[in-house]
Amino acid sequence: MPDIRIRAEHLESFIQSVFERAGMPPEDAAIEAEVLVWANLRGVDSHGVLRVLSYLDNIRSGAMNARPNIRVIKESPAVAHIACDRALGPVATVPAMHKAIEMAKNVGIGWVLLSNVTHQGAMAYYSLMAAREGFAGIAIVCSPPNMAPFGAKAAGLHNSPIAIAVPANERDPISLDMATSVAAGGKLDLARDKGVPLGADWALDAEGNPTTDAHKGTILRPAGGPKGSGLALIFQCLSSLMAGNPLLAPVLRGGKNPRAQNGIVAAIDISFFIDLEDYKNLVDNLVDELKALPKADGFDDILMPGEPENLTLAQRAVDGIPIPKGTAEKLREAARRFGLALPEGL
Amino acid sequence: MPDIRIRAEHLESFIQSVFERAGMPPEDAAIEAEVLVWANLRGVDSHGVLRVLSYLDNIRSGAMNARPNIRVIKESPAVAHIACDRALGPVATVPAMHKAIEMAKNVGIGWVLLSNVTHQGAMAYYSLMAAREGFAGIAIVCSPPNMAPFGAKAAGLHNSPIAIAVPANERDPISLDMATSVAAGGKLDLARDKGVPLGADWALDAEGNPTTDAHKGTILRPAGGPKGSGLALIFQCLSSLMAGNPLLAPVLRGGKNPRAQNGIVAAIDISFFIDLEDYKNLVDNLVDELKALPKADGFDDILMPGEPENLTLAQRAVDGIPIPKGTAEKLREAARRFGLALPEGL
Repeated sequence: MPDIRIRAEHLESFIQSVFERAGMPPEDAAIEAEVLVWANLRGVDSHGVLRVLSYLDNIRSGAMNARPNIRVIKESPAVAHIACDRALGPVATVPAMHKAIEMAKNVGIGWVLLSNVTHQGAMAYYSLMAAREGFAGIAIVCSPPNMAPFGAKAAGLHNSPIAIAVPANERDPISLDMATSVAAGGKLDLARDKGVPLGADWALDAEGNPTTDAHKGTILRPAGGPKGSGLALIFQCLSSLMAGNPLLAPVLRGGKNPRAQNGIVAAIDISFFIDLEDYKNLVDNLVDELKALPKADGFDDILMPGEPENLTLAQRAVDGIPIPKGTAEKLREAARRFGLALPEGL
Repeated sequence: MPDIRIRAEHLESFIQSVFERAGMPPEDAAIEAEVLVWANLRGVDSHGVLRVLSYLDNIRSGAMNARPNIRVIKESPAVAHIACDRALGPVATVPAMHKAIEMAKNVGIGWVLLSNVTHQGAMAYYSLMAAREGFAGIAIVCSPPNMAPFGAKAAGLHNSPIAIAVPANERDPISLDMATSVAAGGKLDLARDKGVPLGADWALDAEGNPTTDAHKGTILRPAGGPKGSGLALIFQCLSSLMAGNPLLAPVLRGGKNPRAQNGIVAAIDISFFIDLEDYKNLVDNLVDELKALPKADGFDDILMPGEPENLTLAQRAVDGIPIPKGTAEKLREAARRFGLALPEGL
């Protein structure tokens, strides 16, 4: 049986309807749907529409707030702190990045803390918002523990991802989006779904022993040992602790998992420093030179950060988004809950 | 024969005299001496006084400028670009971080680009300047190619380090200072000096093949594959390209190595977001909880970023700085050149 494939616009319209029925204002539901489907388009399915059903459950339980009171609680011309009232991630983060960009237009940089937000999806979405407008974009997110610090055999840090993007001219923007763990959590889920073993250095089991068993590996391990561990720790210091909303120590002391996250979005105005077209050409030149280097054994191209995802996007924009059986079931269940018509193709 | 040991204050005073005789203003020579000796105190000997003789050669050749005309060429309340005129790194970077801190006092953040600077030493020095004043400090530096991008078998990126520090209360500040390569360049030098093999994933030889031979391994490899590679690339985009002073593409096209570097120093005013004492206590709490986690096999402590260096500093502040034979010879040669008395102990 061939994969189910759904065109992005049909999927997005369906997801928007689902979130509207779940109580979100239409414009918020549209943002949420766009960020989720965008992740699927780029092949980052772990951050795509497979999340819908759990988001609906979270809205029902109050863990996610469909009608949040998002407030700027601190603000200068260059920095701000936005309290997000458990908003669904994109609903708070998209306007936060708009704010960072506006600040950067005025003073060269905008640095915005977000506290008490919920799952933000693929962080590259926000850094690329800035890059598309001619800014460098940075997005960082921190959650409760899921990764062992270097030297520990239990979870103490979160594998906080960082996304940074800059615009190019003929080339695609450079878009780095990386977890601080060896493997992102989604890769463990995928291995479990596929019934394949984990990479040797990906995870620890509940007792803190390294394992390649996808059903036992639950604690992520830091990329580069002390490097990934150190980045994850310092990102919490720059976001959660600065926002006065710690997510690690309270859980490690035995407290309830807050199931919330804190983050940073920042934009830097490239044109403050250099003519934007000149900059984009410099990025093109650098990519050209890197791609012209001799390839390592087993490589037939030297891919830039974000390039694999862009290749997938180009394909899925034409062919539609493949929907695995389990995800299809989740979408059907979401439709049933609200008596909605299924998107074309499902 | 026991190691030569020199007390930090004697070494620093000697190094300052050397740089004064080499033509630097006394206050600049003092900054340079402090940053170099500080690296030795913390055990980061690769960034310490062993560099003196090559710096002297660079000053003589004009590669380093003992009397630079350092100019702020762009400035807003929150960002600046400082053209460094080939200044010795600390001479430009210390005032740049002071500037970032002043900006942060006014608008919450200061983000300063430095272009055309020379070797900056241990980047943690600058991030810790901010932390000691109650700010989060960030320092990034980019140089010409010495690391293979992920998928390449030749150098195309620099293993650009990033240093980030935040203050704590009872605990030491958290001070991350990491290269984007598996091993810092200094670790390869050290392996060569000691006659021990390199780690398996540290380096490629001139033909681009992985090697553990310390005499053949010249091209660094990125930490975490695409992660270290991506960070190194994006750091160049945020610093060198934004400053209009590319250091990679011109060299990859066959141009002369500019033997200069560009960087970023940034400071964030913690007290803009949260009471500083509360923040420091949150950092303490987090460190306490992480250190209380069960240890992995082979570990008897879970060390925080910067902690190994602080332990060395505490010891060397008492016992003096051990000076290997080769470094001692370099210091004697520097003394001979200017007819200077050797520091006590040498």
